[in-house]
Amino acid sequence: MKFDKKDILGMKDLSVEEINLILETAESFLEISTREIKKVPTLRGKTIINLFYEASTRTRTSFEIAGKRLSADTINISASTSSVVKGETLIDTARNLEAMHPDIIVIRHSAAGAPHLLASLVKQSIINAGDGAHEHPTQALLDMMTIKEKKGRLKGLKIAIVGDIAHSRVARSNIYGLTKMGAEVLLAGPATMLPRDIDQMGVKVFNKIEDAIDGADVVMMLRIQLEREKQNIFPSLREYAQRYCLNRKNIALAKKDVIVMHPGPLNRGVEISPDIADDPSYSVILDQVNNGVAVRMALLYLLGGGHE
Amino acid sequence: MKFDKKDILGMKDLSVEEINLILETAESFLEISTREIKKVPTLRGKTIINLFYEASTRTRTSFEIAGKRLSADTINISASTSSVVKGETLIDTARNLEAMHPDIIVIRHSAAGAPHLLASLVKQSIINAGDGAHEHPTQALLDMMTIKEKKGRLKGLKIAIVGDIAHSRVARSNIYGLTKMGAEVLLAGPATMLPRDIDQMGVKVFNKIEDAIDGADVVMMLRIQLEREKQNIFPSLREYAQRYCLNRKNIALAKKDVIVMHPGPLNRGVEISPDIADDPSYSVILDQVNNGVAVRMALLYLLGGGHE
Amino acid sequence: MKFDKKDILGMKDLSVEEINLILETAESFLEISTREIKKVPTLRGKTIINLFYEASTRTRTSFEIAGKRLSADTINISASTSSVVKGETLIDTARNLEAMHPDIIVIRHSAAGAPHLLASLVKQSIINAGDGAHEHPTQALLDMMTIKEKKGRLKGLKIAIVGDIAHSRVARSNIYGLTKMGAEVLLAGPATMLPRDIDQMGVKVFNKIEDAIDGADVVMMLRIQLEREKQNIFPSLREYAQRYCLNRKNIALAKKDVIVMHPGPLNRGVEISPDIADDPSYSVILDQVNNGVAVRMALLYLLGGGHE
Repeated sequence: MKFDKKDILGMKDLSVEEINLILETAESFLEISTREIKKVPTLRGKTIINLFYEASTRTRTSFEIAGKRLSADTINISASTSSVVKGETLIDTARNLEAMHPDIIVIRHSAAGAPHLLASLVKQSIINAGDGAHEHPTQALLDMMTIKEKKGRLKGLKIAIVGDIAHSRVARSNIYGLTKMGAEVLLAGPATMLPRDIDQMGVKVFNKIEDAIDGADVVMMLRIQLEREKQNIFPSLREYAQRYCLNRKNIALAKKDVIVMHPGPLNRGVEISPDIADDPSYSVILDQVNNGVAVRMALLYLLGGGHE
Repeated sequence: MKFDKKDILGMKDLSVEEINLILETAESFLEISTREIKKVPTLRGKTIINLFYEASTRTRTSFEIAGKRLSADTINISASTSSVVKGETLIDTARNLEAMHPDIIVIRHSAAGAPHLLASLVKQSIINAGDGAHEHPTQALLDMMTIKEKKGRLKGLKIAIVGDIAHSRVARSNIYGLTKMGAEVLLAGPATMLPRDIDQMGVKVFNKIEDAIDGADVVMMLRIQLEREKQNIFPSLREYAQRYCLNRKNIALAKKDVIVMHPGPLNRGVEISPDIADDPSYSVILDQVNNGVAVRMALLYLLGGGHE
Repeated sequence: MKFDKKDILGMKDLSVEEINLILETAESFLEISTREIKKVPTLRGKTIINLFYEASTRTRTSFEIAGKRLSADTINISASTSSVVKGETLIDTARNLEAMHPDIIVIRHSAAGAPHLLASLVKQSIINAGDGAHEHPTQALLDMMTIKEKKGRLKGLKIAIVGDIAHSRVARSNIYGLTKMGAEVLLAGPATMLPRDIDQMGVKVFNKIEDAIDGADVVMMLRIQLEREKQNIFPSLREYAQRYCLNRKNIALAKKDVIVMHPGPLNRGVEISPDIADDPSYSVILDQVNNGVAVRMALLYLLGGGHE
């Protein structure tokens, strides 16, 4: 199968076949990062721009490492040091970058839809590295790769996602992706953190964490944005932790071989207890990070038209 | 002809022969950025430092891409993340960088003359990427390259530059360069934005935009610094736009095949109306950006002593 | 001799043999930075992360240039643009970076012991690029390389270190290193800037600069942190300069062929008079910077297991 998408904007747009191709390509790239010489000439002479309007260590670093291991030239632009301070619109920035002939632009932006706007304006490939509370497809793909790696499949698995669903691009992308691949997705969170009509996305919705993780193969905990406490979306961090923190007690409701995931960075003691986060018999959090580099290599490769 | 300048500090210092050599070299580099593998080994093992004391997306990115496409190692230093916060003087920074054996230092600084000071202190080649309201020679060179590309020549052309001439390093460098190459330069702007004695630079000066663009082959609009509104240099943005915005009506005064230029970022609706900025029959703004990478590759090549 | 340390955390941990091996390796790398093509393929395909939680021009740039001249892929992460703003702990950051398979992590952090914590958590090699007021081993190594270069040896030399000893990681690392190599170390500074029990480190301690530099082969001046003035650690900068500034008068007390060192950035007129700092018959400050790149190349080479 040939991959013929120009952009990776969201899990909503990807077909089952495309997702399978990306995951298989990523699996084949996993080995490069364990070599003595972690570099292949695949994308030599290609230019990749990481255009980050929001601070990020892990996603930007993951993309930069992925690009460099494929021998691409990588250019970082962050909002704080860019001419964004001069008030340039995203449209003008996009057209300007286009005129410098990059091959791929990776964008993170606080506004939902920014990557889609960019993709409609420029002929280069765009990868969405997170847009507002909308989508974060590379996170969902690395999550799916990790689940497949541990469980051998996605289809038929019972996967709980717990936390602030409404404000989470990670949740949204995973819901699109996992339901498409045939998994059963169960959500839990306070009513203020559950989007209306969310049940129309083909998921089951609960208020209690216990109901969602009961019998789960996978539990995915979302990061609480600590600044939301002030917005009265939930009463207090302490109360949130009492009701929704994944801990030794409630994890016992899940399947015995349940795996625990988190997109990071972790608020230990808020959404996840430290002993669960650091217990290798449950936690696959670092496998997610490892697979993240491979998924991004796969996407850069598939979009960059590389060949060894 | 051999290029034997150590530095590129301003258009004032460049001879007609040197300008022609730079433009011809840039034209020959243009094609590299359209290749499948956009990279030549010309400057392999050379170190280029981008030392930016002012925020910039396009200029820094353009230099970084130019360096990487020539296979140089590029190092970015921006004021906000540098030991400038420790109060180190430019002189000490320069001497320190020199001791690390870079080949070329590209500098942008808010103080006019900073690149010249640097050039007098260190043995490496210095490229001025903009110093205060003084010069921005790489912008003028890419502008001249774009005019030559579209009009076939510079000599004898009627070129209008409109806006805040007094505070514009782009205007100053273009005035030096274009008059040297035999073009006729006409300026327009409010009296508070025209430097005294500017007519001694061999240009014609007008207050009305209409007088400057009448019969022009090229109209170059300058960016208004929005923060100047508070300084009472002009009454209001609205009044400025009413008098100096390039639009469908006044552009009709220029030659039929007039081209419109802007160094970016654009204030749409202030100095240029959106329909002119985005009309491909007038606007060559993105050609400027494209040529910018080629001009910077040419300068890095000529100063870096590269050879394929 | 084979170098078998995993990390470079401080001079306290290095043996005389290890220090000699590092210095000899650095001397052999010095020549690369003077070549026409300043690059060797030694660390091709290795990933080096520069993780800087404090602003730095020279140290970060020195490490980045060192890595690139060895053909490694270098990734910069600075606190201001990183997910540190999301409150991620150093531990989680470390584990995440580890999962991306870098080979070496260079860390600067305001907390003493941060590099040691990192080294105990991850399997990659850690280089301490400065931790709080604790250690700055690469600075001490480049200082020792410079002294050896100028004096032919370290053993038996009389070396004065003057300034804010208590808050200086440079002083601490040099005291460990120089005493270990058989030099005689003499300290001078105001009582508030001398750590208690410092004489137990095998050094002589004075309050007057004159007593320390009397007959010295080497005088190393420390940078005064200007912000300390407000903390009442010394009465005023002016008084500090009157008592502790190295100048034409007090330098005459040292040996005729004394060399003057400073880790930079300089406060000219505070801890060192400009005429001494810029006098090539005394100052070896820029040799320190030059040797800094070579020392860092040596460490990256020794830890990265490179071979040409």
